[in-house]
Amino acid sequence: MLDDNTIVAIATANGVGSISIVRVSGKDALSIALRLSKKKELKPRVATLGTIYNTNDEIIDEALLIYFKNPHSFTGEDIVEFQCHGGIAISNIIMEEVLKCGARLANPGEFSKRAFLNGKIDLTKAEAIAKIIEARSEDAVKLLAKQLKGELTDFVNDIREDLLFMLAYTEVNIDYAEEDLPSDIFEQIQNKLNKIEEKLSNTLDASKRREGLIEGFKVAIVGKPNVGKSSLLNKLLNFDRAIISDIAGTTRDTIEESVKIGTHIIKIVDTAGIREASDVIEKIGIEKSIEAVNEADIVIALFDNSKALDEEDRKIINLLEENSHKEIITILNKCDLENKFEKDKLENFVSLSTKETITPLIQKIEHILDSNTHSDDMTLVSKRQVDEVENTYSHIKQAFLPLETGELEFFAHHINEALESISNITRPYEHDQMLDVMFGSFCLGK
Amino acid sequence: MLDDNTIVAIATANGVGSISIVRVSGKDALSIALRLSKKKELKPRVATLGTIYNTNDEIIDEALLIYFKNPHSFTGEDIVEFQCHGGIAISNIIMEEVLKCGARLANPGEFSKRAFLNGKIDLTKAEAIAKIIEARSEDAVKLLAKQLKGELTDFVNDIREDLLFMLAYTEVNIDYAEEDLPSDIFEQIQNKLNKIEEKLSNTLDASKRREGLIEGFKVAIVGKPNVGKSSLLNKLLNFDRAIISDIAGTTRDTIEESVKIGTHIIKIVDTAGIREASDVIEKIGIEKSIEAVNEADIVIALFDNSKALDEEDRKIINLLEENSHKEIITILNKCDLENKFEKDKLENFVSLSTKETITPLIQKIEHILDSNTHSDDMTLVSKRQVDEVENTYSHIKQAFLPLETGELEFFAHHINEALESISNITRPYEHDQMLDVMFGSFCLGK
Repeated sequence: MLDDNTIVAIATANGVGSISIVRVSGKDALSIALRLSKKKELKPRVATLGTIYNTNDEIIDEALLIYFKNPHSFTGEDIVEFQCHGGIAISNIIMEEVLKCGARLANPGEFSKRAFLNGKIDLTKAEAIAKIIEARSEDAVKLLAKQLKGELTDFVNDIREDLLFMLAYTEVNIDYAEEDLPSDIFEQIQNKLNKIEEKLSNTLDASKRREGLIEGFKVAIVGKPNVGKSSLLNKLLNFDRAIISDIAGTTRDTIEESVKIGTHIIKIVDTAGIREASDVIEKIGIEKSIEAVNEADIVIALFDNSKALDEEDRKIINLLEENSHKEIITILNKCDLENKFEKDKLENFVSLSTKETITPLIQKIEHILDSNTHSDDMTLVSKRQVDEVENTYSHIKQAFLPLETGELEFFAHHINEALESISNITRPYEHDQMLDVMFGSFCLGK
Repeated sequence: MLDDNTIVAIATANGVGSISIVRVSGKDALSIALRLSKKKELKPRVATLGTIYNTNDEIIDEALLIYFKNPHSFTGEDIVEFQCHGGIAISNIIMEEVLKCGARLANPGEFSKRAFLNGKIDLTKAEAIAKIIEARSEDAVKLLAKQLKGELTDFVNDIREDLLFMLAYTEVNIDYAEEDLPSDIFEQIQNKLNKIEEKLSNTLDASKRREGLIEGFKVAIVGKPNVGKSSLLNKLLNFDRAIISDIAGTTRDTIEESVKIGTHIIKIVDTAGIREASDVIEKIGIEKSIEAVNEADIVIALFDNSKALDEEDRKIINLLEENSHKEIITILNKCDLENKFEKDKLENFVSLSTKETITPLIQKIEHILDSNTHSDDMTLVSKRQVDEVENTYSHIKQAFLPLETGELEFFAHHINEALESISNITRPYEHDQMLDVMFGSFCLGK
């Protein structure tokens, strides 16, 4: 699986900056660095200033060279970093020279893949590394930093140990007479199963609630035509807008708009051309609203205070009631006009009126997100992790009955399945294809 | 002039990459790094892996820390580099924490300015650092790398030494009787003056010819309406276009278009809406052509083979003849039609016909740029450097006559002026304002 080519990539972002890093990993990393710098040796980990020459012996830059001797490097192989002057041309030229010396261009994620294959990081850390690069809020960074430090690895290992204990019990039970075992072994195992079930359930709940931490929480604005959705959208978008605009590299593929509220990023879910001309906006039907509500973490529903509740309002209220497990904020608009709306219809929801400014709404959203995201429970950060934990959880639940009825082979089957699933989170074996897919989604140079 | 604040900036480009560097310089750099990493010490120049905590004691990343102890650092002050995970959020968060510990945000160019004020680099090196970041071709990088290594500094110092020798002669001549001096002293000085004059003149010529090396050479396309200028422009722009489009951060302020030809970047000078709809293009008059030709390094003039030479063609030919010191390529267009154009009118110029493909034109341009830019003469890379050398050159020329006539006070005056100008290139004194302007144009984090 490991090829022994020496690989190279530019590890810093593409653009104008004062420093760039060209990173080389593999058995020839050191000899290539010595050749391009004409140095006799590089002491491991010591940042050494050197003149960089091209293969025609012309000076191309002055750079700091740092050599990380295997296995004490990110990939576990020899690594040399060229910390050269920033900008586009210079790092590309140094990379070209490294290529001329026999290295090849790294594939996206290949540094991390080598780190994994050499046992330097497990998959949870690899995922945290990939996600931390894209993280946009401090909350996301803190969450991922914990995963990087091994929080999920420890969580997985604890559960694995308990599951292995249970498997051992099953083996023992087949080989020995029951009277040789501790009298409370059945209780012990049931306790462990209960604890694992609770742990997994809490983790899945917390992860679901905190799903928006990394990519942003989704907020949908619903309401009948002309009730003021686009005006509210613009007020939200203009709130603290600069902070988000500053972020370069933000994807513009979707037409979701992002705003920072407190320490959170929220994405306003676009319900079909929500930012287009108002005549287009107001053609949004109830179907679009259903879609937006389904995707949303928070729903803001607008009603018109100056008009009696009508069929369309009723549809929206039904939709909200069907989704009462979500965070819902209703807003009574046009409160400066005579009240004709039956306010008591909204009594099941947190309500604000637009006579107030945008601030109470922002505060309310921030409060919801703060309490939703506050959790000491383990948080999963990828669909892959969630899928494995869900599968583990499902087998743990199915293990209770055979344990009680003494059908130990069925019990062992479910525990084995749970063990495989939970192990997949950190270190799956014989899953080459899965690894290629996973590391292939990394950015270049990682 | 030096404030003793500790400064911080993100030194890598803004965007998605796998590594970012947060750089801290000043007397508190080390203590801030120890506080955020909870380490007891950092060995100078040794890349040390550390967990980074925020001031609330929460883990925010794992980073490599490198401490450069003063005076052995880029700025001459204590520097700590945090090599953290890439992306936008994480480096900003680490920078925020450094700010909370009492550092302040660096001004653009402030790291380089401190390096200059602490005597770590002179102005030629500072300029090379600033320019190398923006360099877009390998030729530019090589040129700037030489300046970074001190080529211009040595050039200036050699001239300074000779000028100081001449001043010393002037002093001696006043204090001693003429017969105590070496008999060939006058010849020696005249030789030195001649050599300096030649050096400066060659440098100014080479610098002028190679002006486009860093920012791109300017190419103007001229010709009467409907002769095929926009079609040629598009062919040039489509040649190897991808390479330029790849370069992020390319300024889009001007409507000049860039193409890479060989190792050179050329910029097609826009003569008022050259890329707009063809009816607009063809309104370009002779005034615009004059402007374009004045700015250009290479002029491509188009003529219509199928029509007799007319008044407008005559104006273009006059313009070319007035600019015969420039590189001029004429192209006879529409050669598939019957020849009615008087070809002999173009005999003074290198001519191509459009029956040939675009390749001969590209080859011709590459050849011109290769021979223009090939030079062992010193090349200046900024208007500031050119201005100072021109001023030095002017005073050297004025020093010959008073030397010959024995008016040594006049001679000394010009040598003193030349000395001040040439010294300004590397290390001007009492020019705070000039320094602020110069370093203020640097990019942030440099």
